[in-house]
Amino acid sequence: MDNEITNMVTNNLFTINNLWMMIATALVFIMHLGFATLETGLTQSKNTVNILFKNSVIPAIGIITYYLVGFNLMYPGSDFAGGLFGFAGFGISTNEAGITSAYNIGYTYWTDFLFQGMFAATAATIVSGAVAERIKLSSFLLFATLFVGIAYPIAGMWKWGGGFLNELGFYDFAGSTLVHSVGGWGALTGIIFLGPRIGKYVGNKINPKPGHSMPLATIGVFLLWLGWFGFNGGSVFSADAGLVSLVFVTTSLAASAGAVGAMITAWILLKKPDISMVLNGILAGLVGITAGADLMSPLESLIIGFIAGIIVVFSVIFFDKIKIDDPVGALSVHLVCGIFGTLAVGIFGSKAGFEQLWFQIVGVGSVGIFILLFSSFLWYALKKSIGIRVSEEEEVEGLDYGEHGMEAYPEFEKARY
Amino acid sequence: MDNEITNMVTNNLFTINNLWMMIATALVFIMHLGFATLETGLTQSKNTVNILFKNSVIPAIGIITYYLVGFNLMYPGSDFAGGLFGFAGFGISTNEAGITSAYNIGYTYWTDFLFQGMFAATAATIVSGAVAERIKLSSFLLFATLFVGIAYPIAGMWKWGGGFLNELGFYDFAGSTLVHSVGGWGALTGIIFLGPRIGKYVGNKINPKPGHSMPLATIGVFLLWLGWFGFNGGSVFSADAGLVSLVFVTTSLAASAGAVGAMITAWILLKKPDISMVLNGILAGLVGITAGADLMSPLESLIIGFIAGIIVVFSVIFFDKIKIDDPVGALSVHLVCGIFGTLAVGIFGSKAGFEQLWFQIVGVGSVGIFILLFSSFLWYALKKSIGIRVSEEEEVEGLDYGEHGMEAYPEFEKARY
Amino acid sequence: MDNEITNMVTNNLFTINNLWMMIATALVFIMHLGFATLETGLTQSKNTVNILFKNSVIPAIGIITYYLVGFNLMYPGSDFAGGLFGFAGFGISTNEAGITSAYNIGYTYWTDFLFQGMFAATAATIVSGAVAERIKLSSFLLFATLFVGIAYPIAGMWKWGGGFLNELGFYDFAGSTLVHSVGGWGALTGIIFLGPRIGKYVGNKINPKPGHSMPLATIGVFLLWLGWFGFNGGSVFSADAGLVSLVFVTTSLAASAGAVGAMITAWILLKKPDISMVLNGILAGLVGITAGADLMSPLESLIIGFIAGIIVVFSVIFFDKIKIDDPVGALSVHLVCGIFGTLAVGIFGSKAGFEQLWFQIVGVGSVGIFILLFSSFLWYALKKSIGIRVSEEEEVEGLDYGEHGMEAYPEFEKARY
Repeated sequence: MDNEITNMVTNNLFTINNLWMMIATALVFIMHLGFATLETGLTQSKNTVNILFKNSVIPAIGIITYYLVGFNLMYPGSDFAGGLFGFAGFGISTNEAGITSAYNIGYTYWTDFLFQGMFAATAATIVSGAVAERIKLSSFLLFATLFVGIAYPIAGMWKWGGGFLNELGFYDFAGSTLVHSVGGWGALTGIIFLGPRIGKYVGNKINPKPGHSMPLATIGVFLLWLGWFGFNGGSVFSADAGLVSLVFVTTSLAASAGAVGAMITAWILLKKPDISMVLNGILAGLVGITAGADLMSPLESLIIGFIAGIIVVFSVIFFDKIKIDDPVGALSVHLVCGIFGTLAVGIFGSKAGFEQLWFQIVGVGSVGIFILLFSSFLWYALKKSIGIRVSEEEEVEGLDYGEHGMEAYPEFEKARY
Repeated sequence: MDNEITNMVTNNLFTINNLWMMIATALVFIMHLGFATLETGLTQSKNTVNILFKNSVIPAIGIITYYLVGFNLMYPGSDFAGGLFGFAGFGISTNEAGITSAYNIGYTYWTDFLFQGMFAATAATIVSGAVAERIKLSSFLLFATLFVGIAYPIAGMWKWGGGFLNELGFYDFAGSTLVHSVGGWGALTGIIFLGPRIGKYVGNKINPKPGHSMPLATIGVFLLWLGWFGFNGGSVFSADAGLVSLVFVTTSLAASAGAVGAMITAWILLKKPDISMVLNGILAGLVGITAGADLMSPLESLIIGFIAGIIVVFSVIFFDKIKIDDPVGALSVHLVCGIFGTLAVGIFGSKAGFEQLWFQIVGVGSVGIFILLFSSFLWYALKKSIGIRVSEEEEVEGLDYGEHGMEAYPEFEKARY
Repeated sequence: MDNEITNMVTNNLFTINNLWMMIATALVFIMHLGFATLETGLTQSKNTVNILFKNSVIPAIGIITYYLVGFNLMYPGSDFAGGLFGFAGFGISTNEAGITSAYNIGYTYWTDFLFQGMFAATAATIVSGAVAERIKLSSFLLFATLFVGIAYPIAGMWKWGGGFLNELGFYDFAGSTLVHSVGGWGALTGIIFLGPRIGKYVGNKINPKPGHSMPLATIGVFLLWLGWFGFNGGSVFSADAGLVSLVFVTTSLAASAGAVGAMITAWILLKKPDISMVLNGILAGLVGITAGADLMSPLESLIIGFIAGIIVVFSVIFFDKIKIDDPVGALSVHLVCGIFGTLAVGIFGSKAGFEQLWFQIVGVGSVGIFILLFSSFLWYALKKSIGIRVSEEEEVEGLDYGEHGMEAYPEFEKARY
C-alpha cells in the first residue's frame, strides 16, 4: 500500500513538472510571433511580407529539422556522446518508454523534444532580423535549415548534451551563449557577406531607415518578455517552486532594469527618450540575465540588466559607426549582450570567480569560432552558387514585390519609398 | 491515516488536471483574438470595424448562449440523453456538488462549462470570415446566436454528449468535424445564400481583393497555433503527461508540415512564395490533425499536415474557380481540411482500418447534412425577413460607414477603394 | 514513512499552487501589452510613440519601485503593521527561507513579490490613458513612480496588508477599488489639473478625436480579458480547483454580459453598433466583477456585467458632457465601474447585506479620499515645478515629434491631422 501511494505521489509530481514544461514550450513558441512583429515593425513596409514569410516558415522548418536530425545531434545520449560530436539517428523514437518519469523526472520524451525544438528555431530567427531587407529568400531558407539542423545542435551539445564544455565547467543556464550568441554570430557573418543596405552609408553619413510601425515593434518586445518566462523558467526543467519563481523574478528585474538603463543612456547620448532603445534595452536585460538567471539575487539581476541596457545603446551606435548594417539591432542585443551575460556568470552571483570566468570565456570563444566558421562557409557557398542578395532594383522597390509579388498593406498610401 | 493521505493525493491530481484545463480554456479564448486579427488582415480596411465588432461580440454571445441553453443541449446527461436530442434545462447549476473529482476526475463543473463554451463560440467565428464584407450585422448576430446556441451543441452531443455517433464508433478527438466542419458547412451555406462580393467575379475573370494587413493576418495565425495547444491539448481532459505532450508534438508537427506543404505547392503552382498560402497551410495542418491528434505518431502527423497543406492550396483555387467567394479561405481550411482530418483517422494512426473509415464517413456525412439543413433554413428565414445582405451602395463604400458610422483607421490616406 | 509521504504530498500541492500563481503573474504581465495597444488604438497616431514609450517603461519602473519600497509598504508584516501605515525596509529579502510552504501555502516569496508587482504597475497604466495626448513625459514618469511606489501600496495595505479596512470587514477580492478605482482617482485628478486637449470642447460643441487604429484597440481588450484570468484567478492565491474555476466563469460571464449590455445601450442611444462601446463594455464587465468574482453565482455575474456595460456607455457620454476629457474612457471603465463593482459585493452574492454595503462604501470613500489628496498634491507640485503639459505647438504637432523626435508610422501618408 505504501509503495502504491508513493508511486501516485511521484507520478503527481511528474505530471506537475511536465505540465509546466509544456506551458513553457507554448511560451517559447509565442516568442516566434514576438520576433516576427519586432522585425516587421523595425523595418520598411516594402519588405514586410518577406519578413513575415521568413518568420512564419522558420518555426515550421526548425521543428521539422529538429525532428529529423537536430534533436539527436544535440542529445546523442550515452552511446554516441562525444565531447565534440555525436548522433543518435534520424527521426524521434515512437516507442512510449519515455512517457514516464523513468525518462526524466521533469518531463516526457515528447515534451523534451518540443521544448528543445522551439528553442532551436529561435537561433535562426535572430539571424533573420540582421540580414533583413536585402537577402534572397531561397538562400535564407537554406541557411536557416542547416543552421538550425546542424550548427545549433552541435554547439548546444557541447554544453547541454554533455559535451566538452559541460565537462569543463562552463555554465549557460538558458542560452546567453548557446542560443543568443549562436544566433548573433550567424547574424554577424550574414551582415558581412551581404554588406549594408543600399543608401544606408553614403561616405561618412549614416542614413537612418526608420522602422515602419512602432506598435508592431512594441508588441514584439512584450511578447518576447512573455515568452522569456518560458525560455528561462522552462530551463529549470521542472516546476520546482523556489527555482522557477526566482528565475521569474531575476528575469523580470533584469528586463526592467534594461529598459531603464537604455532609457537613461539614450536620453543622455541622443538627447531624446528613444522608444527603440527602450525596447532593445528590455531585450538586452533579458539576454543578459539568461546565462545566470538561476544564480543571481534580485539585486544582482537588477545590476546585470542595467549594465546590459547601457551596453546595448553604445553597441547600436558602434555598429553603425563601423558600417555594420543591422536593421533591428540583433547583434547588439543577442551577440553583445549574450557575451556579456555569459561572462556575468563569472562576475556576479553564486558561481562568481576567476576560474568560472575563464570557463565562460572558453565557452564564448569556442562556440563563437565554430559558428563563425560554419556560417562563413555556408554563406560563402550560397553566395557562390545561388547568390544571397536580391538585385539592386528589387531591393529599392522592396522584396515584397520582387520575391512575393504582393504588398503587406495594399490600401495605404505611402509617404515615401 | 492511509485513507486520508490517499484522499490528499487524489485531490492533488484533481487540482493539477483542473489547472491544465483552465489554462487550456484561456488558450482557446485567445483563438478568438486570432480569428479576429486573421479575418481583419485578410479583408479590406473599409470593413475592419465591422469584422472586429462581429469577432468581439461572438465570444460574448457564445458564452452567454452556451450558459443559457448550449451546455445543457450538448451534455444532456443520463436522464435526458437520447441518440439525437436531449436537454437538461436552462442555465447552469449553482450547487457546488460538482466542484470535486466526483463530477469528473479531470476538472470541475465550472471548468467543464467554460472550456466547452469557448469551443462553441469558435464555430460561429469560422462562419464570420466566409461571409465577411457583405453580410448585414443584425442578421449575422442572429445567425451566430442560434448556430452556437442550438446547431453546434446538438451535433456535438451526437459524439461528445454520448449520442448515436459515439455509439457507432465515430472518432473525433478535438473537433475536425464537430467544430471545424460544422463551422465550414455554416460558412458554405452563408456564401451560397449571399453570393459573391460585388466585382469579385466579372465574367470569367477573378478579381482578387487582397487583404489590407499581412501583419494582422500573421498575428492571427500565430495566436491560433498558440490557442490550438489548448484546443487539442485540453481535449485530453486531464494533464496526463504522456497524452498531452504527444498531442502537443503531433499538433506542432502537423502545423509545421502544413506550412511547408502549402509553401511548396504554392511556389510551384503560383510561381511565388505566397504568404497567405503559408498561413493557411499552418491552419490546414492544425485542422487536419485535430480529429486524431492523440492517435498519430510524429511521422504520421507530419504526413497528415503536409497533405493538408497541399490540399488547402488546391482548394482555395478551386473555390475561386466555381465562384464561391470566401474572403479568408475558411472553407478550404475548416471544411475541406476538417473532412480530410476526420477521414485521416481511418487511414493513419492507431485506429486506422476500413470499418473506422466508414464510421468517419458516416460522422462527416450526418453532421454535414444536419448543419446544411439547419443553416440553409436559418439563412433562408433571415433573407426572407430582415434580409442578409447590405445594400450595394453600402458594400462599395464599406460596412464600417454603413453599419457603424466610423472608420478603423481614420487618419491614414487610402490608395484605392 | 507516513510523515515523509505526507511531506511529499504537501510539497506537491505547494508546487501546484505556486505554478498557477506564476502563470497568473505572466497573464497579469500581458495586461500591460493590452493597455499599451488599447491606449494606442484609441488615440491619434501623432502621439503613438509617446504612448508606447510610457506603457513600456511603466511596468519596468513599477517592478523596480515595487522591489525597492512598494512590496514592503504594502505588506509590512506583523512587526510593522499598523492600520494606516507600515514599512518593512528597502529591497526584498534574499534569504531563501520563504521558498517553502512555510512562507505561504500557495506560493513562494518570489512569486508573491512578482505577482503583486505586476498588479501594482497596472494602477499607473490606468492613469496613462486618461492623461494621454497632452502630458509631459518626464512629469508623467515621476508621477507614475511615486504613484506605484507609495500611493498604491499604502492604500493596498489598508485591505490586503491587514490594515484598518481589512479589520472593518471591507471586501475587495481582486481590486475593483484597490487597483481600478485607485488608478481611476489618479486619472481624474490628472485630467482636472491638465484640462482637455486643444479643440476637444469648443463652446458647447464636443469634437470627437477618434482613435487611429481599431485593430490595436481590439487586440488590447482581448489581451486584457486574457490577463484578467490571471488577475482574478490569481487572486485566489492557490490553484484551488473549485474557487479558481468559479472565478474564471464569473469573470467570463461578466465580460460577455458587459459587451452585450454596452452594445444594446449604445445601439439605442447612439443609433449605431459602436465598436469602442463594446470594447469598453467588456472591460466594464471585467472591472465590475473584480471585487466579488469569488462570491457570485453565474447568474449574478451575468447581471453585474450587464449593468456595468450599461453604466459605462452613460458614463462616457456624461464625462464628455461635463468636459472631462478622457481620451480612452479610463474613468468610466476603471473609476465608475470599479466603484459599482465594489458596491455590488454588498448587493449581490454571498456577502450581500446592508452592513457589508456600508463597509464597501467606507472602503471606496477612504481609498478615494486618500488617492485624491495624494494625486492632487503630486500633480500640483509637478505643475508648479517642471510643468505637466506640453506646449500648445507640440500638442498640435504631436508628442512624438516634440518629446521623442520620431514618428510611429513614418511611411504612411496621413489624411488629416
